[in-house]
This record gives sequence, C-alpha cells and structure tokens, in this order.
Amino acid sequence: MNSIVTNEYSIHLDLDKYLALNQYIDSLSPSKIVVLTDTNTHQYCLDYFVSKLDIKCPIDFKSIQAGEQFKNIETCKELWHYFSEITLDRKALIINLGGGVITDLGGFVASTYLRGLAYLNIPTTLLSMVDASIGGKTGIDLDMLKNQIGLIVNPKMVIIDTHFLNTLPEEEFNSGVAEILKHGLIHSESYWNLVSNSKIVNNNSLKEIIYKSILIKKEIVENDPTEKNLRKKLNFGHTLGHAIESYSHLKKGFQPLLHGEAVAIGLLLACHISHNLLGFPKEKLEKLVQGYNYYFSKISFKKIEINEILNLLKFDKKNLNGQVNFVLLKDIGSYSISDEVSIELIHEAFDFYLEL
Amino acid sequence: MNSIVTNEYSIHLDLDKYLALNQYIDSLSPSKIVVLTDTNTHQYCLDYFVSKLDIKCPIDFKSIQAGEQFKNIETCKELWHYFSEITLDRKALIINLGGGVITDLGGFVASTYLRGLAYLNIPTTLLSMVDASIGGKTGIDLDMLKNQIGLIVNPKMVIIDTHFLNTLPEEEFNSGVAEILKHGLIHSESYWNLVSNSKIVNNNSLKEIIYKSILIKKEIVENDPTEKNLRKKLNFGHTLGHAIESYSHLKKGFQPLLHGEAVAIGLLLACHISHNLLGFPKEKLEKLVQGYNYYFSKISFKKIEINEILNLLKFDKKNLNGQVNFVLLKDIGSYSISDEVSIELIHEAFDFYLEL
Repeated sequence: MNSIVTNEYSIHLDLDKYLALNQYIDSLSPSKIVVLTDTNTHQYCLDYFVSKLDIKCPIDFKSIQAGEQFKNIETCKELWHYFSEITLDRKALIINLGGGVITDLGGFVASTYLRGLAYLNIPTTLLSMVDASIGGKTGIDLDMLKNQIGLIVNPKMVIIDTHFLNTLPEEEFNSGVAEILKHGLIHSESYWNLVSNSKIVNNNSLKEIIYKSILIKKEIVENDPTEKNLRKKLNFGHTLGHAIESYSHLKKGFQPLLHGEAVAIGLLLACHISHNLLGFPKEKLEKLVQGYNYYFSKISFKKIEINEILNLLKFDKKNLNGQVNFVLLKDIGSYSISDEVSIELIHEAFDFYLEL
Repeated sequence: MNSIVTNEYSIHLDLDKYLALNQYIDSLSPSKIVVLTDTNTHQYCLDYFVSKLDIKCPIDFKSIQAGEQFKNIETCKELWHYFSEITLDRKALIINLGGGVITDLGGFVASTYLRGLAYLNIPTTLLSMVDASIGGKTGIDLDMLKNQIGLIVNPKMVIIDTHFLNTLPEEEFNSGVAEILKHGLIHSESYWNLVSNSKIVNNNSLKEIIYKSILIKKEIVENDPTEKNLRKKLNFGHTLGHAIESYSHLKKGFQPLLHGEAVAIGLLLACHISHNLLGFPKEKLEKLVQGYNYYFSKISFKKIEINEILNLLKFDKKNLNGQVNFVLLKDIGSYSISDEVSIELIHEAFDFYLEL
C-alpha cells in the first residue's frame, strides 16, 4: 500500500510511514514538539508511538481528559495556557495522537495559537483514520452543538498505523465502521459491495478498506475543500446522526452514543427517507439494516425524544435561510441535496427504525 | 481617491464606498447580517452607518463592552452563543463596526463560527483604518498576552469613512498616528518626510495619508500574507511596544496605555537600538522624538518596571528557538531582523527615552 498524496500534505499507511515521519520532522526542524494525547491514548498508545520516533528536537507531552464532553473551549484554554507556559514559538509542531476529539480539538488549538502552528495527525481509532484525521476540518463543540466552532486547516502529514486499533474496545471499532459504510453508500456499487458483504474486522483486509475509504474521502475533499457542493455528500446520515448524538449526551438518562453509533442510525434514517423521496432501492436499504444489526444494538426512542431531536436540527451547519438541508441518495453513489424533507417523513423513518 | 484592490478583497475610500458596500451585500444575498459594535461605536457610529445601508436582508445588531480587556475568549463565547441563539447559518455576514478590538475579535469569531462566516470591516478609529482592519490578522488576547490566539483570514471588503474620526477622542486619534509614523519609518524617505513634517490632523491631507498608509501595508501583506519575511517589518517598534502595552494593563497602578501610545514608545526604543546596532541616522531619530513629543506624553518607567516588561518579551510571537527577534532599521525603509539585541542595549534605549 502506498502513501496517499493530497494537494497539501501526505497520508502514510505504508511500512515506511515512521521513516517518512522522522524525515519530515528532521526537515522541518521544529523548535519543540508537543504530543497531545487524551488519558486513553496516553496510557495505550504513547509509549509505542514514542518508540517509533527518531528525532533530535525537544519534545513535550500533554494529556487531556478523554471524552467528547471535553471537546470544548475550556480544554482549548487549558492547552493555549499550557503552550504559553512552555513558551511555544511559531516553529513548534503539534502532534495529535488520538481519536477524533484529539485530532479535531488539537488541530483547532494549533491552528489558532500564534495565528497557526503546524500540526500532524496520528489517528488511533478506526473512526479518525477513515474520517476525522483527513480533510482539515478542525473544531470543538459549543455546549452540546457539535463542531460549531472550528476551521478548515490541513495537517502537514497523517500517519495511519492499524497497530493502534488493537487498543480499541469493540464498540469504538464499530463506531468507525459506520463511516466506512457511509463511504460505500455515497461512493460506488463496488465499494458498497465490498464493505457491506465483508465483516469488517481487524485483519489484513481492513488495511485495504481503510486505504480505499481514505482515498474516497480525500478525492471528495480535494475537489471541494470548503464544502460548497460535493463535500456535502460526506454529511450523508449526519444531519440526523449529529442531532441524535448531541441529544444522547444532552438528555439526562439517555444512553450517550458514540459518533458512529449515532451516524449508523442516521444512515438508516437517511436511506429510508431517500427511499421514500427519491426511490433509493429497497434491497440496498435492507442490506444496510443487516449491517446495522451486525455492528450495532438498537436504541429505543420515545415520541417526545424524537421531537426533541428534531428541535436540534435547526443548528445543523448545512442549513441555509432557515431550511434544514438533507443529503439524500437516489442510489448508491448518486446524491442530492434536499430541503423538502418533511417532519412526517422523518417520523416515518424513525418508525421504520424502531420496528427493525 | 480610488478604491484599493488586493488579491482577495477591496478597500473602499472613495465617495461611492457605500454604493460599493450595498452592491456587494446585494450580490452576496446573505441570510442575515449581524453588525457588531462596542458600547462606544454603538452610541456614536451605528445610526450613521445604518443610514448608509440600502439592503433587503434581515439585520441584527450586537454590542459588546468597549475596551481591550474584553478582547478575550469570554467575549468570543458570548458572541458564539448569540450566533447560535439567532441560528445564524453559513450564509450569514458579520459586519465589524469599530476599532481594532472589534475588527480583530469580530474577524476571529466570524472565521471560526461554523468553520467560517464572511465578514467585513468598517474601521472607526484611525488606528484600525491604517492598520488593524487591513491584512487579515484576526485575534484575541490570552490573559494579558496580546493576540496570542488568532488566525489570518481576510475580510470580504473594508470601508474607510473618515467621518467616523470626528467621534474620536484626541488620544485615540493620536494612537493611530503612531502606526502612520511607523509606516513612514519602514517605507521610504518621501513618506517619512510627509508624515514627520506635517501635523497629522483630521483634515483633507489626512485622507491622502490614510490612503498611502493603507497602500504601504497592503503591498507588504500581499507579498507575505503569513509573515514569513517581509511582513515582519510591520512589527517595527512592536516587540517592546506590545510588551509595554501588556504591562501597562497588567500592572496594578500603572497607567493603561493605548496601543499606539505603547507603540510610539516602542518606535523610539527600536530606533535608538537601531542607531546603536546598525547606525540608523541620529537626525532621523531626533525627528521621531519631535513627533513623539507633539502627539504623546512621556511615561515614566522605574528600573524594576523595565525588568518586568523585558520578562514579557519571551511571549513575543516573532520569537524563534527561545531567541527574541527584533525588527531593526539600518535607515528609513531598510529593515533587518536581529536576535542580537542585548538586555543592556534595551536598558540604554529606555535610559534615552527617560531622558527625553
């Protein structure tokens, strides 16, 4: 497997990835490196990662609390103050070692300190390997609204090492599968067949799947870095997915969902709406249901909870002029943006999900 | 006077500037406009500005507390929450109506909301007309460290209306003169002669001076938008100027200085160091002293205060590898970056200033 070169940076999955990393750092010659981890990756990933480094510049380590609830401005302040205490200068390099929270928040904090430090992503979860660490979206949550504050700034390099996946609990692994299924749905019949017919597990074929998913995301992002058009299709399943995810963290007593767990529900709902509104094929919806049942457990929603979730839709970042904009699919790989999704259609989709 | 067109946006000083503004807004067709003011510009500038608008889209007004001490992350949070409450979408437009605090902070808040809203600058102070509103530097302070957090993102348009200068207290006006004197020093003998020989006051020749100062800044910024080299010369006088400004706000009992008041001292110190280290001509230093005495009152510094100010230099954004980097001048228009400014030379420069 080769490395993937984008307009601005390279993604390394090959055997020589750490050689590439060490060479890059050597050529950059940063005044200092800060490796940012959360309490999980500090414990399970940091020693291994440091053992791969062969560099001369000074290095510091900073760990933040693990969890989406810490992806906020308070954590940014903590990090900016820390950068200030250790007097980081503009030639410093930030290395984000972790899942989506670390790469999103670390990228934002780096890109806003002294008007922009260079940063690298070393994703340690399947989700961040195929999604969060690619494409330059950085950001934090504003209260319970996901990624409301952020920027698009690319990392200087991404290193994909599937070794880190061994450290992952099963539900975290499956959370990443949701984005891979999404790539199948939005990209092509062939990739959909590959990912919907094989059980995605931590083995050799996984590397191939990660590689292809990154290529798919990379090509979309490169053609539309600032999400004017094409990139919106990466949001398939995310309009309701984000609202469900936010709600699950917001609502006392509701089971907090991982990003992929919420997105998987969002994919089902969006495929059902696509079926009703645009004739998305029934058998492909059923195939997705099978996949869902394999990787995820069903969540129950009360009527009032669904209404509260719909209330959160008004904060979706794709909205324009007060309209909720849905990404829908006519078929695998064929998307359409619609503002004509009625509340009734969404309720019908939830009914379908609850009856699975 | 014509408008000034940069690579990315235009700066309008001409008689038709509000026509250009209204046409731009009409073509953008934003989902909503938010005009951001502080308590001063809300009182003295907003009605006049609104009277110039001829637009159809919805408009909201938001005012924040006036003063550098509110240029912080707490004010950003207040604005992000406000944007969220009024459910701004990505097609919203932010108009910053105010001095440097409003254009810096408003640009930062806009550029980080939903990964980037469009914004315009309508500078109302001399300082923000010739400096802050041009060049895309946005940012906020981290505690007392100036502009530690920020981004480089250009406004979509800048409107320069010297009418607003009538609302300005004299010391605020003079604060802007410091940056104009700096432009003279870093640019050319002819501009230096123009600005050092004329008393800069609110009259017709002022428009010419503002126009030229903007052109000077614009040319430097366009050649080096991310401050790799050339743009550093805009920091002439700012290494010590920023430290003095921060200190004046930080230190209980010390008189808080306006940005330009601190920069003016920084210019004198930097010219004195330049004279000692690089032979900057004595007679030009003396000319600057004359200018300083005309616009500014002398500030007294105790030895211990100077030492505390020097302590703040380690946070200067130009520092690299633990070295404080000074911008110095060999002569008018001829700059050099040096890390060889000793503590003794800085103390000598303060002694010179204190003996004026």
